[in-house]
Amino acid sequence: MAEKVKKISALKEKEGISQPETLNREVVKQLQSSKKKELSIDELVSGILDQNQATLSRAITIIESTAQKHQQQAKSIIDNCLPHANRSIRIGITGVPGVGKSTFIESFGKLLISEGKKVAVLTVDPSSSISKGSILGDKTRMEKLVKEKNAFIRPSASGDTLGGVARKTRETIILCEAAGFDVILIETVGVGQSETAVHSMTDFFLLLKLAGAGDELQGIKRGIMEMADSIVINKADGENLKAAKIAKNEFNRALHLYPAKESGWAPKTILCSALKNEGIAEIWEVVSDYFETVKSNGYFQHKRKEQNKFWLMQTIESRLKSEFYANPLVKVELEKQLLALDKNKTTPFEAAEKLLSMKN
Amino acid sequence: MAEKVKKISALKEKEGISQPETLNREVVKQLQSSKKKELSIDELVSGILDQNQATLSRAITIIESTAQKHQQQAKSIIDNCLPHANRSIRIGITGVPGVGKSTFIESFGKLLISEGKKVAVLTVDPSSSISKGSILGDKTRMEKLVKEKNAFIRPSASGDTLGGVARKTRETIILCEAAGFDVILIETVGVGQSETAVHSMTDFFLLLKLAGAGDELQGIKRGIMEMADSIVINKADGENLKAAKIAKNEFNRALHLYPAKESGWAPKTILCSALKNEGIAEIWEVVSDYFETVKSNGYFQHKRKEQNKFWLMQTIESRLKSEFYANPLVKVELEKQLLALDKNKTTPFEAAEKLLSMKN
Repeated sequence: MAEKVKKISALKEKEGISQPETLNREVVKQLQSSKKKELSIDELVSGILDQNQATLSRAITIIESTAQKHQQQAKSIIDNCLPHANRSIRIGITGVPGVGKSTFIESFGKLLISEGKKVAVLTVDPSSSISKGSILGDKTRMEKLVKEKNAFIRPSASGDTLGGVARKTRETIILCEAAGFDVILIETVGVGQSETAVHSMTDFFLLLKLAGAGDELQGIKRGIMEMADSIVINKADGENLKAAKIAKNEFNRALHLYPAKESGWAPKTILCSALKNEGIAEIWEVVSDYFETVKSNGYFQHKRKEQNKFWLMQTIESRLKSEFYANPLVKVELEKQLLALDKNKTTPFEAAEKLLSMKN
Repeated sequence: MAEKVKKISALKEKEGISQPETLNREVVKQLQSSKKKELSIDELVSGILDQNQATLSRAITIIESTAQKHQQQAKSIIDNCLPHANRSIRIGITGVPGVGKSTFIESFGKLLISEGKKVAVLTVDPSSSISKGSILGDKTRMEKLVKEKNAFIRPSASGDTLGGVARKTRETIILCEAAGFDVILIETVGVGQSETAVHSMTDFFLLLKLAGAGDELQGIKRGIMEMADSIVINKADGENLKAAKIAKNEFNRALHLYPAKESGWAPKTILCSALKNEGIAEIWEVVSDYFETVKSNGYFQHKRKEQNKFWLMQTIESRLKSEFYANPLVKVELEKQLLALDKNKTTPFEAAEKLLSMKN
């Protein structure tokens, strides 16, 4: 049909050179045959424990799936991985687009690998579903790191809600830890609410900044600085170096104004040039210092426990709400109460009581 | 007993002049007799509608009470006042301690009264229960305003939660409106979460600042500036005037960096000296401009509807949570699940599911 319509179009192109096929039939065949070979839970789990990255990827895909049958599988995989998890250090990395997060993670990741670490890189980017924006959550941004056999890069889980994305990321962390990764880097873009979520699932929170631009210009929210365990001023090279040194002093002054952290750790500002690979070793030293401090003073375990509680409460709250509003009686009454509210015939508190009485 | 101990104290004062009684027996008698005369709902409501401030005060006390019998009375009073409410303009005023909120409210309130308005001043200060701090939420701070017959000043409702305090304040607004107050000023201290609550119950949000001090030094959160419909730089007199003018330009520049407001209103920075009564008339002009703008473009009604929805949802959420955690089965299981979490035998998400299954 489309072909026929085209033939009468005034815009018809000269025929003669046929367009290349957009599908590679050979690849499709391979994909289809590999799809058929579904792995059992046992095979998936032992693959993960054997540090097989392909199996790890497939297991993560199951976790990310919203299909009913996958959810039961996901639960079994996680249950089997849990005894082997929780042995990594988890580092959150945030900063606005353009600050050089990918380049930084490449340099930092390569250093860690050269020290014998296994590094997993995950991204949390719910912005595509929430604010319609997006970071380039893609392996192709980290060309060098992706070639390392001890590196595993997984782009953002997708989902309708930040809560959903966060859950999948948390579960992916467990799988990566079971697969023997020592360091989990979790990247997020420093706008919106995702950095609060990432802060709540990592041990160390690193904020990347640039010299010169004010907070408003960098689009970063003020609260983020308070979360940071370290501020890294990237692109501190060449002509930028002077401004970066000034910024370092300013940030250090600003950090002093915040109340002391429960961790007993005093956040530090560090200069680096990820592109020129300068300052990266110093950052790793600071991060190592941090982990030495919090592991010896007990804060490390304490924080992980608090994070578990936080996610437990969060999950319960969001489910209580979604179940309540899904109740057909509540749906009908909600319309009525909103109308009464609009006409000032009730107060929000009376309306809430009326709605809550529908529940039981 | 205390008397006896005192007699052997080396610090004992010379006797001879007896201390004045700390209780005025006559006043106590009056108070006791007035306590006996409990007013009926009808008497309370007609007193409010007759603009009797003593009756209004008694009704607010019933609303603030946590006693069971008062809660039913409160509901009836509010129901009867609702048809006469919603006719005022509600202005939120925030700023850190020391910025001069009381002096400002005195000057501003007196101007409004001179223009024939009736002015109610309420304070929201949950800090005493949450952060153990407190502002001086007291009539005595506004000596001049308190003498005006068209002014009504009511210190902060107390409560365990910000939600509880906010509810009582929202209900007090209804009563004040039914009592014929045209302008409701709601004061809060610009730290913590109370200004978000106040922002969610007012039409216009005014942020008081001082020149010279940075945001960190003023202890105010960055998000507050985004909420402001106007920034007023107080104490812009004498030696401060030059710095205040510079600050005005800076704030105006900063305000431009925020995205345009849904109200179609561009926030303005104004200089004033509440103490010297300078700039107060200009502020009232700006506020009046605002209400003209938002009443003609429909945002005024829209915002009140959204606020009603916000408080409806807030109330439902907090009740769903408190009921869930009060469930004895949940309490027992929560302990178990937290233990399992601490031992990494479960994930927060699995634990949440287990707990949620207790509910039904």
